[in-house]
Amino acid sequence: MTDKSLLDRVHSPSDLKEMTDEELTALCGEIRRILVDTVAQNGGHLASNLGVVELTVALHSVFDTPADKIVWDVGHQAYAHKILTGRREQIHTIRRENGLSGFPKRSESRYDCFNTGHSSTSVSAAYGLACADELRKGQHYTIAVIGDGALTGGLAFEGLNNAARSDNRLIVILNDNKMSISQNVGSVARYLSRLRIKPSYLRAKTRMHRLEKLPLLGKPLTRGIRRFKNWLRDEFFGGKNNMFRQLGFCYYGPYDGHDITQLRSALKAAKRKHDPVLLHVCTKKGKGYEFAEKNPKDFHGISSFDIETGETRSSQRGYSDVFGECLCRYAQQDKNICAITAAMSLGTGLSTFSKTYKDRFFDVGIAEEHAVTFAAGLAAGGALPVFAVYSTFLQRSYDQILHDAALQQLHIVLAVDRAGIVGEDGETHQGIYDVAFLNTISGVTVYAPSCFRELEYALHKALYETSGVAVVRYPRGTEGYIPEDFPIGSKPFQTCGNREAPILAVTYGREFSQVCRAQELLRQEDIDICVLKLNTVKPLAAGAVMLAKRFERCYFFEEGIRSGGVGETYGFELYQSGYTGRYTLTAINGCVCQAKTEASLHRLGLDAEMIAVKIKNDLIVGGMAHGGKKKT
Amino acid sequence: MTDKSLLDRVHSPSDLKEMTDEELTALCGEIRRILVDTVAQNGGHLASNLGVVELTVALHSVFDTPADKIVWDVGHQAYAHKILTGRREQIHTIRRENGLSGFPKRSESRYDCFNTGHSSTSVSAAYGLACADELRKGQHYTIAVIGDGALTGGLAFEGLNNAARSDNRLIVILNDNKMSISQNVGSVARYLSRLRIKPSYLRAKTRMHRLEKLPLLGKPLTRGIRRFKNWLRDEFFGGKNNMFRQLGFCYYGPYDGHDITQLRSALKAAKRKHDPVLLHVCTKKGKGYEFAEKNPKDFHGISSFDIETGETRSSQRGYSDVFGECLCRYAQQDKNICAITAAMSLGTGLSTFSKTYKDRFFDVGIAEEHAVTFAAGLAAGGALPVFAVYSTFLQRSYDQILHDAALQQLHIVLAVDRAGIVGEDGETHQGIYDVAFLNTISGVTVYAPSCFRELEYALHKALYETSGVAVVRYPRGTEGYIPEDFPIGSKPFQTCGNREAPILAVTYGREFSQVCRAQELLRQEDIDICVLKLNTVKPLAAGAVMLAKRFERCYFFEEGIRSGGVGETYGFELYQSGYTGRYTLTAINGCVCQAKTEASLHRLGLDAEMIAVKIKNDLIVGGMAHGGKKKT
Repeated sequence: MTDKSLLDRVHSPSDLKEMTDEELTALCGEIRRILVDTVAQNGGHLASNLGVVELTVALHSVFDTPADKIVWDVGHQAYAHKILTGRREQIHTIRRENGLSGFPKRSESRYDCFNTGHSSTSVSAAYGLACADELRKGQHYTIAVIGDGALTGGLAFEGLNNAARSDNRLIVILNDNKMSISQNVGSVARYLSRLRIKPSYLRAKTRMHRLEKLPLLGKPLTRGIRRFKNWLRDEFFGGKNNMFRQLGFCYYGPYDGHDITQLRSALKAAKRKHDPVLLHVCTKKGKGYEFAEKNPKDFHGISSFDIETGETRSSQRGYSDVFGECLCRYAQQDKNICAITAAMSLGTGLSTFSKTYKDRFFDVGIAEEHAVTFAAGLAAGGALPVFAVYSTFLQRSYDQILHDAALQQLHIVLAVDRAGIVGEDGETHQGIYDVAFLNTISGVTVYAPSCFRELEYALHKALYETSGVAVVRYPRGTEGYIPEDFPIGSKPFQTCGNREAPILAVTYGREFSQVCRAQELLRQEDIDICVLKLNTVKPLAAGAVMLAKRFERCYFFEEGIRSGGVGETYGFELYQSGYTGRYTLTAINGCVCQAKTEASLHRLGLDAEMIAVKIKNDLIVGGMAHGGKKKT
Repeated sequence: MTDKSLLDRVHSPSDLKEMTDEELTALCGEIRRILVDTVAQNGGHLASNLGVVELTVALHSVFDTPADKIVWDVGHQAYAHKILTGRREQIHTIRRENGLSGFPKRSESRYDCFNTGHSSTSVSAAYGLACADELRKGQHYTIAVIGDGALTGGLAFEGLNNAARSDNRLIVILNDNKMSISQNVGSVARYLSRLRIKPSYLRAKTRMHRLEKLPLLGKPLTRGIRRFKNWLRDEFFGGKNNMFRQLGFCYYGPYDGHDITQLRSALKAAKRKHDPVLLHVCTKKGKGYEFAEKNPKDFHGISSFDIETGETRSSQRGYSDVFGECLCRYAQQDKNICAITAAMSLGTGLSTFSKTYKDRFFDVGIAEEHAVTFAAGLAAGGALPVFAVYSTFLQRSYDQILHDAALQQLHIVLAVDRAGIVGEDGETHQGIYDVAFLNTISGVTVYAPSCFRELEYALHKALYETSGVAVVRYPRGTEGYIPEDFPIGSKPFQTCGNREAPILAVTYGREFSQVCRAQELLRQEDIDICVLKLNTVKPLAAGAVMLAKRFERCYFFEEGIRSGGVGETYGFELYQSGYTGRYTLTAINGCVCQAKTEASLHRLGLDAEMIAVKIKNDLIVGGMAHGGKKKT
């Protein structure tokens, strides 16, 4: 029997039930090879997927999916789940346009019962699914698989607090790999590490056995001794007073998450319980692929790499790096500057800061809500906090920005990374809402640099020339095209090109590159447009609006959600000022699916080519006095 | 020495340090009388304030405020704190326009170090303040006072998880009154009730002493016995394995929160610790005022009442009641309907539902994030969840609405209560952001009924004629004025008055009453306007925009934030459709301070009088072809 034949026998998860533990273990090897091959090719989340292969196989072999439901927290660890649930043939399309999603998607398979992407939602969602099943008198199990990192998110705690009271068939699996993306932080992490100390527990247990054999100890003490044993269990193994038990869960574990036999018997035991169960499973991120085991951080979310060497193509210096370097420079001179991350020090470019300014660096765990309120506390105490966070995750902090910082006019800086289209992670990770939701909060200032140098200026302005909540937003990756002669500055807005042209194109942030390239394309066809770049997108400078009034046509290109975005506000203000020309807003309606960023921009009409085509077509169809041609 | 003289001796908190415990106890009585008198007069939060009088006195007598800082979670329990920190003379102005705030306000006093209003922020904020102090090499203490209800909020957990690792002078006081607003729910509540079982602990301790005296037990077992004792402590009193200890805090308690001597000695002990300390203090909501002790729920947030009888003026049937009745009716016929509240079953009108449909009612604790994701899980499982929540608290769920419900197109209903101006609770409680932040999320439908009957229609539409996230938003209190002949319906928009008039006033929700009254006022002056009422504010019906095109002037009156609100979207779309008339938007810029709702509406230009004045003045100043006069 070749290795290959095992996976060939799995047409649906029920086929796993026919296999022996040895076969299942061998199957895990096959799955791992597919995982490494696939991610080496497409990029994606590798370390987390390699860590849960046995867990995934064990789950599908013990439970009856899709009637029983598995909610994968965050969801970037569901590749093996996809392979086992009829998507093996498409796994090579993962994270590609029109391919499989890198996350669970209800629209993709009936085995995906809840979409995830952001952290710490699984317990809440699973509890909802379990209650719905209960109401329909169903007899199905709902399983939430949540990492120790995600457990630091308050939402997970709220879920546990609520779900523990239930009597439905809910099983929470704590996938403890001792880290979320970077090393896990906080007291929950420390607590879990205590729970893991099985050796001490075992040594203590041995001593206990010896004690029991002493002749002095008769019947009268039996109860006491039993209690002593229980105490030992509690002390070293998180028994009755284990935190999860205190929260009302039946706690079992920790189990070796790479031992199929142990996992299956634990899952079977959990099935027999009729109270909410928490199974503590220890796994190793990157398990089975040497390079990923050694550097789980680097292999968390990774671009395509060489399987033999584990090397990725060296990535270019990006906005995150520039932000990190820049903040370190400012921090050297200003002892008030503090940096905060929500478990993303690497991704947000704060690695150097975290080592250089240890006492001013705070990794708060996956806790964006707390991060902002904590920053507000720091500011109220006289410090100058900078919270670096991905745009999509900042959505979590809407109320904290509004209620704890903005209303109090506390000066905090939000460094919003991954603003705009992010690419292959798809709709749950797009940074397209921040401008719109920040737009609703009074007293917030939003800067949108279009190149590295502007990022430095913007950060300086946010730190020292802005009161209240100051936001600097910048995209994933590296700089785009900027015209050579463009005077990079730090004014609220700037123009590029002929102010006497009949057409104005307004934009901000990364999109400026596309608009400028469109300007070049149009110039080649003798069509002259002026480009207005907003450096400060909120509040809108009156001058930036007034300037547009002299143009016959005004376009706004926004790499962000249309409804409530700046393009709407700008257009509204422009009309209010008495503008009688034509204003055309191109922005994002609805969600943006996974694809390369360039492809998404193209489809949205936001890349240079589409922008040029649009303006040209409008000229042809609409006709303009002088055709928008250059005045010669 | 009369009672009165004690409080007269307190010019600043430091004066408390001179007093004996007996005097401090007597002082508490004086404060209680002021509290009852004040709230009986002004309305406000009574039960929670009466519960923390001794705690407040003890805190200010042991710590050196304002150098040491107290962060009051939620903040509605800070009245005694205000009385002791130089605001005794103004306490009668509390919650009134230009008076003292019902919550801590940094702008009001240097003793208020952080503004609160929403729940569960105190640990995060206090930890921020403590870190800032540490960075400045300060030696001050920061104290967070948090209720057991607020502890169920995930933000508090995120704060505890992060703060426990610190080595700064942070003291968290768990003010355990066994309930948040209604009876506290969830496993944390159950856990705290276990911690409170002091009698069992004491009985067990007695048994232990007896055991120790048995002759059989010699030296060899001493260690085991000590451990047994520890186990007992752990078992009944939350010792080493107490959840808060597991989280890394030094846990002490529970203490009698009404015993000044005990409290002071506990606080002094906490001061000597250099690790984060959690003091568990048990208090009684409403302590010292019989009616409030008996009905702490009714005396949580209360309007003015009769001190002798404890009776408030009977409140009128309001939107919350109508919502609750209506949902019960639908739920009787539809077994899929579930109701969710975040510790607000009374306030949101769900009391009857909670008793009638126990198995379909979920009080999730103060956990709005979880509430929405849980609702999404219920919906994914085929149920029909309705989450009833105050507008201001829904801000907490922005990401969950977007990421867990809207992106997945799951059908959940949000019943958004207290939408619009709320009155005396002031800026942290205004429901003025929901329309704007929901406006940024694709696939959300927002209904804004203007009377009870429309609320019923809207709820029905939300339940049965809407896909995705369906929102029904309605104000605090009772119905406003509706013209007698107004045909109440459930179309996306309706007009009221002469469609041939030159002036159109657009609005939605409660504001419709004001605009209609303005229409009456103007009619008296022979000025004819037409009123367009949006029943569905998102998505905007194209017809609602097109209809406005025929009017020379178009006004939009929005009881909500301007930036990103519907008034901007409507105006933008109107202009885009080629409108050449004048469009004037009156909405809210910035925050709205405490005042009676009518007063706020007036100041914002949103009450009938101001609306009429505005339209009339514009006619006089601007001049219109036929002066807007009725065509006769």
